[in-house]
Amino acid sequence: MVVKSSKITFEKVLNMRGGKGEVEMAHLLSQETMRNKLRLFALMKLPPNSSVGLHKHEGEFEIYYILSGEGVFHDNGKDVPVKAGDVCFTDSGESHSIENTGDKNLEFLAMIVLL
Amino acid sequence: MVVKSSKITFEKVLNMRGGKGEVEMAHLLSQETMRNKLRLFALMKLPPNSSVGLHKHEGEFEIYYILSGEGVFHDNGKDVPVKAGDVCFTDSGESHSIENTGDKNLEFLAMIVLL
Repeated sequence: MVVKSSKITFEKVLNMRGGKGEVEMAHLLSQETMRNKLRLFALMKLPPNSSVGLHKHEGEFEIYYILSGEGVFHDNGKDVPVKAGDVCFTDSGESHSIENTGDKNLEFLAMIVLL
Repeated sequence: MVVKSSKITFEKVLNMRGGKGEVEMAHLLSQETMRNKLRLFALMKLPPNSSVGLHKHEGEFEIYYILSGEGVFHDNGKDVPVKAGDVCFTDSGESHSIENTGDKNLEFLAMIVLL
């Protein structure tokens, strides 16, 4: 099955996980398609000065793959600048947040894998 | 944990899965880090006229996320042109291949999730 980029629809989320501003999220594959192994596979767009707030994962881990833009990834207590091609891994029991610190959209893939 | 793009190393694979030419693959996260839920999370680079040959997945599914370039994805019997932002899903029991049909590198993420 191929999901064409042109068919993807974004939803707007205000103050996601307590973050700043309004971000956009597009679900790329459903949890059912992914046989309940992943509960999220999404494309995220964060405009300048927006963020996904600090939150903890339990019983699952999350991977971000940065596609474009610049930001700061809060990695369970440490701030790390990120840009295209960087991979952020948040294990079960860890916390993370991500903020756009650049002047263009910060785009990344987000995948949550259930343990 | 953040894996910086600048620290990623590629290996060259000739005739991958019986495909054409030489492709490059970089493992982004280890199977151990991903708690054996995924057995592959890799960045693939296919130069013009190269391909990953037709092969079948059993007991696992694979997701491609196209990052750049143009190609043809063979989707279990059907050829589909793909470009940046497209998502290719190959379920357990299905076969796929992918070929660069453009004049630049075809780059994509490949994720294999174990059932």
